[in-house]
Amino acid sequence: MLTAKVIDHIWSTRKAESLNGLKFMLVEVMGGKDAGKRMVVADIISAGVGDRVIVTFGSAARRMLRNDEIPVDAAIVGIIDEDCTGFETREA
Amino acid sequence: MLTAKVIDHIWSTRKAESLNGLKFMLVEVMGGKDAGKRMVVADIISAGVGDRVIVTFGSAARRMLRNDEIPVDAAIVGIIDEDCTGFETREA
Amino acid sequence: MLTAKVIDHIWSTRKAESLNGLKFMLVEVMGGKDAGKRMVVADIISAGVGDRVIVTFGSAARRMLRNDEIPVDAAIVGIIDEDCTGFETREA
Amino acid sequence: MLTAKVIDHIWSTRKAESLNGLKFMLVEVMGGKDAGKRMVVADIISAGVGDRVIVTFGSAARRMLRNDEIPVDAAIVGIIDEDCTGFETREA
Amino acid sequence: MLTAKVIDHIWSTRKAESLNGLKFMLVEVMGGKDAGKRMVVADIISAGVGDRVIVTFGSAARRMLRNDEIPVDAAIVGIIDEDCTGFETREA
Repeated sequence: MLTAKVIDHIWSTRKAESLNGLKFMLVEVMGGKDAGKRMVVADIISAGVGDRVIVTFGSAARRMLRNDEIPVDAAIVGIIDEDCTGFETREA
Repeated sequence: MLTAKVIDHIWSTRKAESLNGLKFMLVEVMGGKDAGKRMVVADIISAGVGDRVIVTFGSAARRMLRNDEIPVDAAIVGIIDEDCTGFETREA
Repeated sequence: MLTAKVIDHIWSTRKAESLNGLKFMLVEVMGGKDAGKRMVVADIISAGVGDRVIVTFGSAARRMLRNDEIPVDAAIVGIIDEDCTGFETREA
Repeated sequence: MLTAKVIDHIWSTRKAESLNGLKFMLVEVMGGKDAGKRMVVADIISAGVGDRVIVTFGSAARRMLRNDEIPVDAAIVGIIDEDCTGFETREA
Repeated sequence: MLTAKVIDHIWSTRKAESLNGLKFMLVEVMGGKDAGKRMVVADIISAGVGDRVIVTFGSAARRMLRNDEIPVDAAIVGIIDEDCTGFETREA
């Protein structure tokens, strides 16, 4: 999993029917050498813009959505507690 | 998933038989540290050159194509709405 | 798998219910060109901050947790012996 | 999938028994930010050195080989038509 | 798959029980833009330090080990013949 910050919503009207009703967010990786990578993730735990989250990838994302037929490869699995901050520094 | 821009069609006459009739597009990652990576993706939602799209990877791409036997590892799952633009900036 | 150093705990109160009771650690890749990448991994073998560990990714991480339904894509599979040090140098 | 150029054959006499008879090629990614990455891929559609090809990764590669038990994670799925050239430029 | 050079053994006494008896090696990617990346791989074909090998990743590695329950995501599938050398150059 990666730690990332929620940047914005991503809106897509023309999309796979199976994605209807699913919320997509743009996140940016925080901390370490990969800081600054952006990706689109599904969110079912009501994360908001500015939240720092844990993102899971691949088939694990479909486990988060409890639906193995959905074409999603990244999902938020947790919101990081506010007093947990050590991971944010970029590589020295 | 990643946000990407559709650059061109990719034509391949000599290919796996199971890929016949499937449309392949060249896309380039938009925004963040990975901006500028290119990949080939399957498209079944009629994306066009210039469209900004959401791409899914791995086994999730086969979910998009509703065919788990096809040798495809990337597919467009949605076309990003035109008024959704915040994701395009490259890493500061 | 990658060799990494355990940097800190990651705390998340609002998370997927299936992750309750699971310990998450922040690790940083050691050695080679990827040194400095950070990721969040599940730990069920009681690794501590400062330990050097082997991390496995993808569906293999769920094998480590012996639960294929959990939305986790990275897990510690071993703690590297203290007298094993050759892997730590960054790319020359 | 990625677009790549076939660079050479890779010969391995001591290898997994299940790989006997399978042809392995060294390819190099063409175009975009990842241009210059090299990988070893299985080929069952008779690609030759110098051909520009589409490569698929992960479990999708086993779909190409129509054998889910083989330890292969990359395979050529198509040879790109000669008059298809737009993808070759490296990131500006 | 990637071409890599075997650098050293990796020793881990405290590890997943299912990994007992399995040999882990540190390898470094050879050739191309990714040269210098290091990873830990399982070896069941008796590769030695200094050997140049082909490494497979993800669920394919479990195919190499013929055990889908083992938490391993990378394995050596072949030792490259000594007279096969073209892949070793780093990106020009």
